[in-house]
This record gives sequence, structure tokens and C-alpha cells, in this order.
Amino acid sequence: MNDHLVIFDTTLRDGEQSPGASMTKDEKLRVARQLERMRVDVIEAGFAAASPGDFDAIRSIAEVVKDSTVCSLARANENDIRRAGEAIKPANSGRIHTFIATSPIHMEKKLRMTPDQVVEQAVKAVQWAREYTDDIEFSAEDAGRSELDFLCRIFDAVIKAGAKTINVPDTVGYNVPGQFSATIRNLRERVPNSDKVIWSVHCHNDLGLAVANSLAAVMEGARQVECTINGLGERAGNAALEEIVMAVRTRQDIFGCETRIDTTQIVPASKLVSSITGFPVQPNKAIVGANAFAHESGIHQDGVLKHRETYEIMRAQDVGWTQNKLVLGKHSGRNAFKTRLADLGIVIESEEQLNLAFSRFKELADKKHEIFDEDLQALMSDEAVTPEQEHFKLVSLRVASETGEVPHARITISAGGSERKSEADGDGPVDACFKAVEHVADSRSELLLFSVNSITGGTDAQGEVTVRLAKDGRVVNGQGADTDIVVASVKAYINALNKLVSNSEKVNPQV
Amino acid sequence: MNDHLVIFDTTLRDGEQSPGASMTKDEKLRVARQLERMRVDVIEAGFAAASPGDFDAIRSIAEVVKDSTVCSLARANENDIRRAGEAIKPANSGRIHTFIATSPIHMEKKLRMTPDQVVEQAVKAVQWAREYTDDIEFSAEDAGRSELDFLCRIFDAVIKAGAKTINVPDTVGYNVPGQFSATIRNLRERVPNSDKVIWSVHCHNDLGLAVANSLAAVMEGARQVECTINGLGERAGNAALEEIVMAVRTRQDIFGCETRIDTTQIVPASKLVSSITGFPVQPNKAIVGANAFAHESGIHQDGVLKHRETYEIMRAQDVGWTQNKLVLGKHSGRNAFKTRLADLGIVIESEEQLNLAFSRFKELADKKHEIFDEDLQALMSDEAVTPEQEHFKLVSLRVASETGEVPHARITISAGGSERKSEADGDGPVDACFKAVEHVADSRSELLLFSVNSITGGTDAQGEVTVRLAKDGRVVNGQGADTDIVVASVKAYINALNKLVSNSEKVNPQV
Repeated sequence: MNDHLVIFDTTLRDGEQSPGASMTKDEKLRVARQLERMRVDVIEAGFAAASPGDFDAIRSIAEVVKDSTVCSLARANENDIRRAGEAIKPANSGRIHTFIATSPIHMEKKLRMTPDQVVEQAVKAVQWAREYTDDIEFSAEDAGRSELDFLCRIFDAVIKAGAKTINVPDTVGYNVPGQFSATIRNLRERVPNSDKVIWSVHCHNDLGLAVANSLAAVMEGARQVECTINGLGERAGNAALEEIVMAVRTRQDIFGCETRIDTTQIVPASKLVSSITGFPVQPNKAIVGANAFAHESGIHQDGVLKHRETYEIMRAQDVGWTQNKLVLGKHSGRNAFKTRLADLGIVIESEEQLNLAFSRFKELADKKHEIFDEDLQALMSDEAVTPEQEHFKLVSLRVASETGEVPHARITISAGGSERKSEADGDGPVDACFKAVEHVADSRSELLLFSVNSITGGTDAQGEVTVRLAKDGRVVNGQGADTDIVVASVKAYINALNKLVSNSEKVNPQV
Repeated sequence: MNDHLVIFDTTLRDGEQSPGASMTKDEKLRVARQLERMRVDVIEAGFAAASPGDFDAIRSIAEVVKDSTVCSLARANENDIRRAGEAIKPANSGRIHTFIATSPIHMEKKLRMTPDQVVEQAVKAVQWAREYTDDIEFSAEDAGRSELDFLCRIFDAVIKAGAKTINVPDTVGYNVPGQFSATIRNLRERVPNSDKVIWSVHCHNDLGLAVANSLAAVMEGARQVECTINGLGERAGNAALEEIVMAVRTRQDIFGCETRIDTTQIVPASKLVSSITGFPVQPNKAIVGANAFAHESGIHQDGVLKHRETYEIMRAQDVGWTQNKLVLGKHSGRNAFKTRLADLGIVIESEEQLNLAFSRFKELADKKHEIFDEDLQALMSDEAVTPEQEHFKLVSLRVASETGEVPHARITISAGGSERKSEADGDGPVDACFKAVEHVADSRSELLLFSVNSITGGTDAQGEVTVRLAKDGRVVNGQGADTDIVVASVKAYINALNKLVSNSEKVNPQV
């Protein structure tokens, strides 16, 4: 039997740390449910000590996810560990992932600790963590610039203290496969009891080699890969989960290990994360790009299918690409609607929420003849589904586009329950509307990004708009969907403003 | 001194073959000029025998590009070779790249030739090519499934016939680095006179390993890498030029070879190709993604800069990331405008074109206070700059968005010189306008994609819209930019319709 390769997804921690990719608790829950459905082994749900919001999100995920281990990151100090331990308490299976820097420069400048103190602190961290769980992972931050002797010493110590997974990050993403595999080989040869733990890697993609470095480590016996959906993550991101999983599966002849991932959930997961973060997936992205399986030449495709006996074939349907499916129309009932949402993994919390969502669905079905799964995803990710949390709401708008005329918007929004009217000119209808909204909201935020994508084909498609706003160093994304692009834009803008009103600060670690 | 690594860019051939990425001759010329400015060694400008349009584009590129070798692909038959030879004739330095399938399945089923006949045909192809140039590249199509003995035999024969570069493609993208490097090592050891030619690789990214496989081959002595801007290319694309170049440069300690690429031109090239194809670059893409150099932690970045002595540091400015530069405003004159365009590599062909572009610039400057380089790029890629080629033109439009009302568009367009008015209702203002345009154009095309990105930040930014239309299996992209999103959308739609009217069929090879 082949070895099991543990898939550790850190979309909700390292992925969420990338500028512009921050998620609300509800968004994190939706991603976590999808990761569970995909049968990810470990979901790193956040960094509990970063902020009360992070703690709360991890705890909520620990409450609902039953089939995947739920993990919190924690620095190697008592407060961080206890926050992580409390956050994962409701989980069926919970993990604490603790880390400390092991490179001379970081120990001296950042931690101001001697190597002896660092080892002692790491051991204490594992001991604190054992009060909460036996599933403890230890990472050596900046392992790439650490001395091998010291790495062996600290790994030996934390394994003795009870760490079950040892993670070796390539924090700055400058390794190449030959070098990184040698590091893993050396560590596994030299660290006592190295066969008693799972070796893990966490690679960054600065030179485009995160996946290759991770796979090189797997060839040397690493049996956990830390990765993210779409390769999301700080800077150029982490290793892409979909590429790791499909390489190992397609080339079992080489890798000799298996994941338990339900690969048909890969494309839905990719679309969900892209939609929530507003980060597009380029068409030529491996596995999940729109063109990844588009073959122009029939002969060529035929050749692939007939003569890849030595490899397991990778087919579009294996990773969850399906045709747009006509699922619902204007005559569909409440039950059909609710069932389809459940199939898509969208959980309706209350009867009231269902009523609201269903009336929005009927409204959309009046405008759009064919309702696809993507339309439902957009409908349900839209802000109006959870109205109680919102400070600003769009009541009505009117604006015209006419060549040669200055667009003028008249808009009514509800702010904290009271209706406010506002008017503004702009360089276009969207600009005019945004200015009118800003008159009421007075957010003084900066618009960093505005993008629109059609959710399905055809001219009656809904446009899904992402608006990214920055204020005082905080960055939020707002989404809105509508068949009217101006309305969708205003919804997205208001969604972002609501997030600016509610979000709080947090700390981002570097692993 | 380090070896020279030849960078062979196939954005205009393999990249352009990906569904939805087809380019007009003018667009190809702009990309070719940028590749030359970046100091790419070889520009594969197309496949001359594919269509008269391809032939024409290669010939035009051969006429203007002076510093890079200009190459045409050609199957191993006399007609293809002669078309390629004619197309590259104006070049300072021209290359013919010929290929034939060498795997048993392709020789038998596709070519219906014996191995002896295939070798004979390949040798003849090289001999025909020598009538035009000494710079001949030979590729063994489907090398990955070919017998090593046969590869050695055909490479030996074409080297004797005069091929100077031998290319080994991983056509289906299923190789992993250890395996691919062994193939290159074996070939270089076994093929007679292997030290007299340059070994080249062409890797596809189906498992996310195109860059890693290419670099593994470089470690074994390959000295040409075929790659594309942003990793564009069929399916999951080719190896990304920017990742290959920066890996080799940053890790000279490992690779021991150098390119002559001006790396500061990498980001401009990426933006140009993304803008022309409408393929977005995801923020977490290595090197050219918007977040690639976004570090949230000051300490971490500082650590990178201070202690990477063994590596050459990769900095954002090294690859051409700059702040948006305020270059022009409403008081800028014609000369300042023309000079800035020249700096951006945009060549104005005639006085008439300059007048038109300048008046469009003034129009934009009235609406938008700060004109950035990106605005100029969008302005100049917009359809109205080359009006003589256009069948349809937007004259005027009027449409309103109002919550609770059905949008109604009134539009006037010029079709083949005569003005036509049209009205339509729609699900949104864009839908209403598209329907009104379609009443006049009667294209019966299908809308595959609609996307909008703001070109710079701020609410007065121009929106750049991409519209992708399909008709009878042909796919075209239209672009339009305006501060009014509805106007930009209609411009993009009309641009796509004009391309549908003018484009022609062609053949796409698989290498």
C-alpha cells in the first residue's frame, strides 16, 4: 500500500494574510466547509492570538468541521498557545501548530534570545500545547538560514517533548529543488527518532518553485505538504494544493504516496476562494485555470488518452470541471432551491435567512432565464443575505450614461437604519454612484482595485464586482453581484464599507 | 565567465494559440517590440504556414525587430519551410524552427510514415531551411513518448544536416524534474556531436512543473529555454519567462549561466500581454503578480535584504515594478505626449494617427486629472487609434440604471460608414447596449467572457473592459477603455465585432 501524504491547507492562515485577501468569519466558514468536503486532512484555520476575530473564526470552524483536523498557529509563548488551545477546543480533532525562529539573525535581532533559550522555549511551547491536544506541529521559522546542527538539536528536543509533525519552511522562497531535497534528506538522516514523526514542508513561490520544492521533499520522505487553494499566500504565495495533489496522483509511478483528497472538489474550491478574495485565477493556471483542459487539437487529446498507460490520466472531470448546469428557473420552488444550495455546500442558518435568500432568487430569476450554480454561489455570497450585520444598505439608485454628458447619480442608502439621500457627478456612472455613497459614508478610504467578471456566459449574465478599499493600512474586499453592472458595483462598494466599519486589527506572523 | 542561456520566447506562437489569446498583427508587433526591448534572444513570431495573417505578422516583425532573432515555426514539409523562409527574409537574424513527431503512435497514426521516412523527412526539412538561413532549430514532437534510441538517431541525422539547436519538448506536461533531467543527460551523452549544438527545452505546465522541469534541464546543460510571458500557452501554458530568468539570475550559485535579459522590462511586458489578451495575472503570481513583492512584515523584508549574501537579491525594481508615475496632465503638449509614448515603446505610424491619439488624450485629461503610463497604454490599445480598419464605430449612446426599472439603451453606431440608430431593453445597462449594438451588427456571436479592471487606483480611474466573443469556433477578444464603464464596455464589444469581421482561419500545431 502506498504511504499517505497529509494535505495541510493554510488558505485561511497564510493565504488570508496576503494583502487584499482578508476574509470575514462567514467567508472563512464557507471556505472551511469546502475544504472539509474536499477531504483536506488538516485545515489551518488561523492564528488565534492575532485578534479576537481570528480566535472567533477558528472556534466557529472547530465547531462545524467534523472530518478534518482543525489547527491554529501559535508563537512559542504561553499566551499564544493557550489562545490556540481554547480556539480548537470544540474540534473533533484539533492541532496546535507552534513556531519559533531558529536562524542566528532572527534569534539575535527579533527574539533577543540565545540558542539555548530558544530550545527551552520551544520545548515549553510543546508542553503547554499538550495540555490541549496530542496533535502538535512544530515549525522552525527561517529554517533555510538556520544552521543544520541547531535544527537537528531543536527538532530532537521538541520530538522528545511530544511534537508529532516537524515542519521545514522555505520562508523566503529562494530554494531550488535539488537543494531543498538535500535539506530534508539530511534532517531525516540526522535527527534521532525522525521515523517517529511526520516531516512537513511549507514552500513559498517567489521563484515559481514552491510546488517543485514541495514535491522534491516528498521524494525524500516528507509526508505532509502545507499548501493553499490557487497558491494563495504572502507575496507570490504558497504551493498550490491543486498542483501538489494532482502531481502526486497523476505520477504515482514516481511519488509512491497518496492523498485522500476528493479531487472533484478542487475546481469548486478554487472558484470559491477566487470569488471571496477577488483574486482572479489566470486562464493558463495549471489544473484550475479556465484553459487548463482546453485542447484545440483533437488528435493530440486523443493521443494523451490512449497512450498514457503508465500515468493515471488527468481529466477535466476528475478535478471538478463541469459544464454550466441549468439547475433552477423562475418556476423552481423553495425546496428545490434549498436542496441545490445544500448540494453546493451552502448552509442556511435560519428560516428567515432562507426566506430572504429565496425572494432574492425569485428576483434574479425574473431577470435571468437560466440560473446556474455559479449564479447561486454569487447570490448567496452577496451581502444582503446577512442584513443584520450591516451598517450601510443600498435602497435605490438612479444614474445615466450618455456620450457627451457628465454622469449624475441620485442614490438612497440606509445608514445605521435611517435613510439618507445623496447626489454626485462623476467621470462615469460608477464613479458618480461611489461619490454619492461616499458623501453619506464619509469613509475617507482609498479605492485600490475595481474589477468585474461575468459569472456565466451570455449578455444576461450577472456581473460579479470586487471593490478593494484601503484605510489606515487596512485593506478590505467587497463583493456584489447583479445583472446591472452599476448596481453590482454599488453593492460591492457598500459591502466593502461595511467591512471597514466592522473589522479589527491583527498580527500576521511569517512562517 | 558563465555560460549564456538563450531565452526563446514563444508568446506569439504557442502563447497566441491558447483559446482566447489570439492577437491582431498590430498587437503582435507591439509585443515583439517589447520582447526586443527586453533583449529576448529569439522571438518565435508565429507559424508562417498557418494562415496568410500569420505569415504577414511574422514578416512585419522581421522587418522592424533588429536586436532579436526572429523565428517562424514550420512543419517538416517543403511548403511550410518555404513559407517560413520567406516570412523571416527581412530579419537581421532569422531562424527556422522545424518539427516532426517522433513517437511511435504519432508516426503511425498521424504521419502514417515509417521511422526511416521520418528521419529522411527531417533531414530534408533542414536542407530546405538551409536555403534561407544557417540558424535552424529542430524539435522532436512528443519526445516524451519517443524511444530514446530513435531520438538519438534522428538528432544525429539533423545535426549532420545542419541543425544548430535541438529542442526537446515535454508536449503534454507530465514530466517531473528528476525524470526530465535524466532524459536531457542521456541525450547529451549519447547523441554524437551533442557539444556542437545548443540543447533546448520546451515544457508545458499541466502539473505546475514547467519552470522546474526547464531549470532541471538547465542543470544538465540545456542552454536554451522556450518560454512565454506570464506562462501563456496552450492549456496550463508554457514555462513562464519571468520565473526562468529570475531563478537563473537570483541563484547563479546553482545554475552557473546567465541571460542577457533586461529584467526591468519584465513587468511592462507582463502588463502588455495581459492587456492585449485580456488574461489577468493573478496577484500571487511569482515575479509579475501585484502581490509578488508585497511584504507585510518589515522585519522579514529587512532580514532578506541583509542576509542573502550568497544569492543575488531580487528586488521589485529589478523586474520593472515602479510606482504609478504621474507623467502627463491636461496641459501637456503634443511633444511631451509623443515622447512619453516612445518611452513606452508605442510607435505612432503617421501624423494623422498622432493627431487622433492626441485629441483622445486631451479628452481623457479633461475627465481624469492624473494620466499614468497605464492610462496611455490603454488609450493607445483602444480601437479608435486605427479607425481606417474598422467596420463598426460607436457614435453615441444613452442608457440609464435605476433600481426597479428595466434599463433601456439608445445607441448610434456607424456600420461601414453609414450611421444606424438602435434601441433595446436589457437586464442591465451593458446588456441593453450590447443588444442594441447586436441589432445593427447581427453577428450572432456568443459572449464568452466580460471582465473589467481599473487601470489605476481611485474612483476616477479608467475601466479597461475585455469582451470575448465566439462565432463558428473562432474566438476573439475586444478591448475598450473609458472612465465610463458602460462606454468602455460598448467600445470593447465593438472592437471584438470588428475583429470577427476581419479575422481568418488558421492551423495550430502542437509542439
